[in-house]
Amino acid sequence: MSPSSARPTLVTDVARSPHARLLPVPVGRVGLEGELWGRRGEAHLLASLHQQWEQLEATGRLENFRRVSGRSERPYAGRVFNDSDLYKWLEGASWALARGPRPDLARLVDQGIALVEGAQQPDGYLDSYYSLERAGERWTNLRDNHELYCAGHLLQAAVAHRRATGSDRLLRVATRVADLLCAEFGPPGSGRRPGIDGHQEVEMALLELYRETGAERYLALARHFLESRGHGLLAGGWFGRAYFQDRAPFREMDRWEGHAVRAMYYACGLTDLYLETGDRPLLDNLGRLFTRMVSRQIYVSGGVGSRHDGEAFGEDFELPNAQAYTETCAAIGSAMWCHRMLLATGEARYADLFEWTLYNAILPGWSLDGLSYLYVNPLEDGGGHRRQHWYDCSCCPPNLARTVASLPGYLYATEGEAIWVHHYAQGTADVDLGGRTVSLTQRTRYPWDGRIELVVNGQGEFALHLRIPAWCAEGASLTVNGERVGPPPAPGTYAVLGRRWRPGDRVQLELPMPVRHLEAHPWVAEDVGRVAVTRGPLLYCLEGVDHPGAVLRDLAVDPARPLSAAWEPEWLGGVVVLRGEGRAHPLPAAWEGRLYRPAGAGPTAAPRPVPITAVPYHAWGNRAAGPMQVWLRRG
Amino acid sequence: MSPSSARPTLVTDVARSPHARLLPVPVGRVGLEGELWGRRGEAHLLASLHQQWEQLEATGRLENFRRVSGRSERPYAGRVFNDSDLYKWLEGASWALARGPRPDLARLVDQGIALVEGAQQPDGYLDSYYSLERAGERWTNLRDNHELYCAGHLLQAAVAHRRATGSDRLLRVATRVADLLCAEFGPPGSGRRPGIDGHQEVEMALLELYRETGAERYLALARHFLESRGHGLLAGGWFGRAYFQDRAPFREMDRWEGHAVRAMYYACGLTDLYLETGDRPLLDNLGRLFTRMVSRQIYVSGGVGSRHDGEAFGEDFELPNAQAYTETCAAIGSAMWCHRMLLATGEARYADLFEWTLYNAILPGWSLDGLSYLYVNPLEDGGGHRRQHWYDCSCCPPNLARTVASLPGYLYATEGEAIWVHHYAQGTADVDLGGRTVSLTQRTRYPWDGRIELVVNGQGEFALHLRIPAWCAEGASLTVNGERVGPPPAPGTYAVLGRRWRPGDRVQLELPMPVRHLEAHPWVAEDVGRVAVTRGPLLYCLEGVDHPGAVLRDLAVDPARPLSAAWEPEWLGGVVVLRGEGRAHPLPAAWEGRLYRPAGAGPTAAPRPVPITAVPYHAWGNRAAGPMQVWLRRG
Repeated sequence: MSPSSARPTLVTDVARSPHARLLPVPVGRVGLEGELWGRRGEAHLLASLHQQWEQLEATGRLENFRRVSGRSERPYAGRVFNDSDLYKWLEGASWALARGPRPDLARLVDQGIALVEGAQQPDGYLDSYYSLERAGERWTNLRDNHELYCAGHLLQAAVAHRRATGSDRLLRVATRVADLLCAEFGPPGSGRRPGIDGHQEVEMALLELYRETGAERYLALARHFLESRGHGLLAGGWFGRAYFQDRAPFREMDRWEGHAVRAMYYACGLTDLYLETGDRPLLDNLGRLFTRMVSRQIYVSGGVGSRHDGEAFGEDFELPNAQAYTETCAAIGSAMWCHRMLLATGEARYADLFEWTLYNAILPGWSLDGLSYLYVNPLEDGGGHRRQHWYDCSCCPPNLARTVASLPGYLYATEGEAIWVHHYAQGTADVDLGGRTVSLTQRTRYPWDGRIELVVNGQGEFALHLRIPAWCAEGASLTVNGERVGPPPAPGTYAVLGRRWRPGDRVQLELPMPVRHLEAHPWVAEDVGRVAVTRGPLLYCLEGVDHPGAVLRDLAVDPARPLSAAWEPEWLGGVVVLRGEGRAHPLPAAWEGRLYRPAGAGPTAAPRPVPITAVPYHAWGNRAAGPMQVWLRRG
Repeated sequence: MSPSSARPTLVTDVARSPHARLLPVPVGRVGLEGELWGRRGEAHLLASLHQQWEQLEATGRLENFRRVSGRSERPYAGRVFNDSDLYKWLEGASWALARGPRPDLARLVDQGIALVEGAQQPDGYLDSYYSLERAGERWTNLRDNHELYCAGHLLQAAVAHRRATGSDRLLRVATRVADLLCAEFGPPGSGRRPGIDGHQEVEMALLELYRETGAERYLALARHFLESRGHGLLAGGWFGRAYFQDRAPFREMDRWEGHAVRAMYYACGLTDLYLETGDRPLLDNLGRLFTRMVSRQIYVSGGVGSRHDGEAFGEDFELPNAQAYTETCAAIGSAMWCHRMLLATGEARYADLFEWTLYNAILPGWSLDGLSYLYVNPLEDGGGHRRQHWYDCSCCPPNLARTVASLPGYLYATEGEAIWVHHYAQGTADVDLGGRTVSLTQRTRYPWDGRIELVVNGQGEFALHLRIPAWCAEGASLTVNGERVGPPPAPGTYAVLGRRWRPGDRVQLELPMPVRHLEAHPWVAEDVGRVAVTRGPLLYCLEGVDHPGAVLRDLAVDPARPLSAAWEPEWLGGVVVLRGEGRAHPLPAAWEGRLYRPAGAGPTAAPRPVPITAVPYHAWGNRAAGPMQVWLRRG
C-alpha cells in the first residue's frame, strides 16, 4: 500500500515532549510492500483482526460489555482482565484504519466502541468485571485484578483511534475514565487512594493521553503510579514483591526481575516519564538496566522472560531453551521500550534490539496465515508446542495485531533537519521536514537480502541517518548516485549523509549477509558446546520435518563449513533457506536406559555426514508437528 | 543406641500382605551408631523434634486444634493443610519413641494427641480448617484443599504411635476418621461420593491402617481412591490434570508427570495395593515407571521434580541444576516407594536408589545441627539459597523427622529363612527368624569407608543376603571368617551366603570406594561438558567457602587426574573430603558485557592449576553463604 493519511498517526506522539530527541514519522505516512511486511503485514493483519473479533465474540468478551449495558443476561465470562483484549483489538484495528480505508473493519470498530460506550457507568467508571454484582468491589484488589491495567489499554485504544480517524468518540469515554482515576488516586496527603496496579500499563497510557490532550493531571497521575512502585504496596499475595517489580523503587533497581511483561511495560512508562520530565538519572538507570538485560538476561532470539514460574526474568545467564517462556507480549513490551529509548537518545543499540526482537521474538508468535499464535516461544521443542487460535489468557493475539498494524510508525523518524531511517523494508514514506515533504522510496528484499536502494525525493540540505545494524560485522558500504561516500560506516551506529539533495537521488546501502554462527557466554549452561545460526537480522532453526529420521539434538554443524543461502518462494510463504552439510552424532548404545555413567566410559561412535536445512526461526511451527532446535551441537 | 523394643515397630507392616516378598525388621530391633546415623540420627533427631514442636506452636498450627475444641479464640492460622504438620511430627516422634525411652518427647506426644482428640467432631470428622465457621464446607474442594491428605497423615501417625507405644489412643481417633471416610466415599452405585483428594497420601495410609486393623473396608476405600484417579475428577482448576496425575488411569501411565510429591505418594499407594492384591500388571507397570524415572527423569543426586512451576516432573532429560526443584519431600516419597518396591520384589535396584536418595537427596535437606532445613535442593547455587528453620508451607521439616526417626526400619528384612541386609551402618540388629533370634553387629565407618564387618550371632542354617551396591563397579570382595567365598559378587545384586552359622561368625565385605567422575546423558542440556564427583554412595560438590576468589562455574576437573580422599573429623561434623588439582578457566575479557558472539571469535585464555576441595553434597550450605556447584566443568 502507499501512504494515505495526512493525520499525525504517531504511535508515540513526542512532538511536544521536551526531552525527545527523535520524532517518529506517522503510521499513515509510511507504506510497506514486499513479501513480508507488504503481503503478510496487510492481508494477514486483516485476517488476524477479523479472526480475533470472532474470538472476542465467541469467548464472551464482547458479551461482558453487553451485560453491563443490560443487553445480555449471561454471567461474566473468563478472566478479570478480558476487557483489555477488546481494547488492544480496537487499538490494532485503529492503526490498520490509519493505513488505508477498510470499511468492513471500520464497521467492527464502531460496534466495539459502541459496546464500550454502553458499559461506562454514570461516574465514568468502566470495567465490565467490576460492574453490576461486583460494583461494590471497585479498587479492592488492584494487585491481582488488573483494573487499572484494563483502563490503560482503553486509553491507548482511544488515543490510537483518535489519531487514526480523527474521531473523539472513544477518547471521550477514555478521558472520563482517566478523570475518574485522577479523582480516586493520588499521592499521600492528597486524600486519595495510593493504590497502584499489579500489572503496569496505565502509566504509559496516561502519559500518551497527556500527550494527546495536554492535560497535566494525566502526567501527574502517571508519575504518582510510577513513583509509588517499589515500596511494598503489592506485598502479601501468592507472588512476592519481585514479581510485580515492587521490591525496590525504580531508582534503586539494578536488573529486571519478576514478570517480564510487567517489567517491560514498566520500562515503557518510565521512559515516557523521562521524555516528559528530563529526569536524567532515570534515563541513565534505564540505560544500565538495558545493558544488564542484553548482556545477561536475553535470549539469542531477543526474547525475554526465562521462567514459566511467574512468567518471569530468571537469574543472570538463566536461559533454558526448551523451557524458555519468552512470552510474545514480553517481546512486544521490550520492542516498545526500545522504541522509546531510541526516541529519547537516538542510540542505535535500541533500534538494533527492536529489529532483532521484531523478527525473532515477536514475529514467531504469528502464524504464516495470521490465524494462530504462540504465547510461549521456546527455542527448542519436542513437537508438542503448537500454535493456537486463541487462549484462555489471550493477551498475545491482539498485542500482535496492534504491533503489526502500527509497524509503519517505527521505521522512520526526524530530528530537526534530519531524517532517520531505523529499519529497512520495501516501501515508501512521506516525511515532513520543517514544512516541506521529503518522499523516500526503499527498494529492497530485506530481510532476505542486504541490498537497499533508497530514492530520495526532496529538495535542499538535510541529513539522512541510516542505521548500520550491529549484526553487520563485515562492514556495510554506502554510495550516493553510485559514488562511494565517507569511510565504511561502523556496525551499531547510524551513518550520516548530510548533503544538498536533489529529487531522485539514489542512496545504495549494502549490508553483507553471510551465514553466521553465534556462541553463547560460557555461563549459559544449556548452550555449552552449541552454536546458533543467523543470517542478517534473522535467527534460524532446524525443524524435524526437514530432517526425517534424524534426532535434532544429535545434529551438529561446524562453523568452519558454511551453509549456503537460497531463496525459496514456495517455502513457508517465501523464505531464505540455509543448506549445507552437518554431522549426525549417533547416541552410543551404551546410553540406552542410562542417565549417568563413569566419565568417558563408553565408546564414541563416529558421526556421519547429513544434509542440514535451516529455516527462519520466525517461521517455525507452521508445518507438521515435530521437533525444533535453535542451538545446535557444534562439531 | 541399642535395640530396645520387642514390639513389631514396622514402618510398613507387610507381615500378612500376601504379595510381599520381604518383611522389614522393626525399627525397635535395630540400633544405629557411628558418626552419621548414631550421633546425628540421635541427638539431632531429638533436636529437630523439639525445635519443630516449638515451630508448630509458634506458627499457630497447634492453636488451630485448640480453637476447634473451644480453647482458643484465635482465627485459623496458615495454610489449609497445616494439620498435617502435627501429624507428621507425631509420626516422627512416635518412631523416635520406638527407638528408646525419651520422657520429654513422650510428654509432647501426649500433648499433641490430646489436641487432636479435642478437635474431633462428634461424627468422627477431624480437620481444624473445616471446623467451626467452615463446618458446612466439608468435602467441597477435595482437589485443592488437602482434606483427605490431612486425614491420611493422621492415620499414618496413629499407626506409628500404636506400633511404637502399644497405645490405641491415637488409633481410636484415626479409625473414627477412617470410618467416616468409608461412609462418605465410595464407587459409583454405592450412593457415596466419588471424590478423590488432589494430593495423594490417604491411599497408602488406609492400606497401612488395613494392615494394622485387618478391616477390609480400608483396603476397599484405598483401592477406590486409587482407581478413581485419572478420569478427570480433578480437572478444571488452575493446574491441569497432569499436575494431579489425573490425566490417565494408572494402568495407562507410561511416565511420571506433574507434582513430584503427589506422584511419589501415588506410587507408594499403588505399590501397597499390589502388596495386598497381587495385581501383577500393576507391579509390572510400576517397574516400567521406575525404569523410565531412573533413566530419564532423575537428578544425579537422586532428587526428582525438575520444575519450580508446579513443583513437578519435567520432560525427559529436563534436569536444570540451579533451577532444580527436587523438593526434599519428593525425595522422601521416592525412597518410600523404593522401600515398597523392594518389599514386593527383592530387586536390588530399589535398595540402590533408596540409599542414593537417602544420602544425596534427603539428607541435604537437614542441616548439620538438625535445626534448619532445605525445601528446594538445587545442584548449583549462587549463594542465595539458604536453610530455614521453618517454612510457610512446611511439609519438609516434619517429613525429614519421620524419615530419620524410622530409618532403622529400612536396613534389614527377612524372607523365610533368610536375612537381607539392605544398608550398611555401624550398629546392631536383633532379627526374628522363624522363632529364633539372630543378632547382627555391623562394624563399619560406612559411608566414609567401604569395609564392613558383620558379626553374626545365630545358630543353624539360614541365608544372609548382602547388597552389593550398583555404584561398586570395581568389584566387591566377601569373606566369612577370613575365607573368600564364591565368585566376586556383581554390583547391583544381593550376594547370598547360605550356610550353617555359628555364633560369632564374621563376614567381611569390602566395597572399594575410589573417587569416581560421572557424566550425564548427552541430552541433559545443562550437563554437557561437565562431570559430577562421587565416592561410594556419596555425591560431592564444591563450595565457594573452600575456593576463595575462584568462580566455581569456571573451575574444571580432569577425570584422569584423581582426587584423593581424606577423613576430616573437624569438618562439617566429620566428613571425608576430596582434594586434588583442578584448573581455573579464566573468562576471556572478550565476554565482558556480551552474551553472544560469532563462534570462536575470541582468544581463549589458558587455564591455571588451582587446588580443589570437594565436600559431600549432603553437607552443603552449612557454612558461610556462597556459591555451590555439583556439575563441574571437565578439562
